[in-house]
Amino acid sequence: MKSYRRELWFEVPERLGFVNINPQVEECVRASGISEGLVLVNSMHITASVFINDDERGLHADYARWLEELAPHEPIRQYRHNDTGEDNADAHLKRQVMGREVVVAVTGGRLDFGTWEQIFYGEFDGRRRKRVLVKIIGE
Amino acid sequence: MKSYRRELWFEVPERLGFVNINPQVEECVRASGISEGLVLVNSMHITASVFINDDERGLHADYARWLEELAPHEPIRQYRHNDTGEDNADAHLKRQVMGREVVVAVTGGRLDFGTWEQIFYGEFDGRRRKRVLVKIIGE
Amino acid sequence: MKSYRRELWFEVPERLGFVNINPQVEECVRASGISEGLVLVNSMHITASVFINDDERGLHADYARWLEELAPHEPIRQYRHNDTGEDNADAHLKRQVMGREVVVAVTGGRLDFGTWEQIFYGEFDGRRRKRVLVKIIGE
Repeated sequence: MKSYRRELWFEVPERLGFVNINPQVEECVRASGISEGLVLVNSMHITASVFINDDERGLHADYARWLEELAPHEPIRQYRHNDTGEDNADAHLKRQVMGREVVVAVTGGRLDFGTWEQIFYGEFDGRRRKRVLVKIIGE
Repeated sequence: MKSYRRELWFEVPERLGFVNINPQVEECVRASGISEGLVLVNSMHITASVFINDDERGLHADYARWLEELAPHEPIRQYRHNDTGEDNADAHLKRQVMGREVVVAVTGGRLDFGTWEQIFYGEFDGRRRKRVLVKIIGE
Repeated sequence: MKSYRRELWFEVPERLGFVNINPQVEECVRASGISEGLVLVNSMHITASVFINDDERGLHADYARWLEELAPHEPIRQYRHNDTGEDNADAHLKRQVMGREVVVAVTGGRLDFGTWEQIFYGEFDGRRRKRVLVKIIGE
């Protein structure tokens, strides 16, 4: 069994944003030399997500509006987490809707994807450098 | 290390529906000859889910109603994704609530499940043929 | 390839609660002797979650309030699942928001985590003994 590990770093300039990280994950699979296995891609932060969906700007605007309705940032004082001096409780909630991680099959040395699947980093408390972990195991 | 891959195909006749795919996944585990490992089961489409819950008709009706409240199909024009000519933006949102994939332990050559766990395909933009990927790695 | 399996048991005294299970999962990784691989941690029940977030009491209060808004317990009769004699339909919904499972990288014999990541058991229909599965594969 082989294994491979890499950290990817991002700094989203707004509080909320989505970044297509598919090329970086594909590059990890190539670099790993693994042809059959599983790749785990997860946010190492608890106010961000890794998820798979469509690379379509309108959809990302829909996600942003919808998540703000489900877990609004304001008023900050509605959240007990923010009593600690934070203002990011909503980001911890949004991240649960979108998920922490994805697990993707590696087949024939490539991400084994349907036509429209792309991996995204979802940021809900940005404006600072944050990390994603890529771990691959297989043969 | 052994690996195994199979695609399962479904065509749900309505826009939204749930299909118990546990027997097909169990058959994949048997066919793989893997006794200890992990199985990944994921939708290859971004408007559908794979999830684990109860095989109970009333619960599925509750999921359908609840998801429609959280991410209503109508009015279609409320979603920027639908400006592209699609009408399925809500399906991309519903799928995030229910999840893309499950990872299940394989122990002694079987799905290592609690009493009530069953794997479902959740369709949110049906009436066409769509795929689920089963990938198993282990020994 | 090595594999390791253990069940963890919990009894949350209220209907809803969160338990930090990170120490038990770390102990499983140590006991497994696996230094590079993946660990799957999942609820074996369909009214409970395993998720990763912050060990902060205020945030857990926020999760409890938010989940009750998204999927209220009362009135019980609003859910068709409860026509079967159950009163826990809401727990099946809450669990989908928070997720069934997490997959975590094992690197150098340890959980490969960001600074604030901690694994939690999320109970939505407690007051009875319930199980979490830990499965580790790797080398």
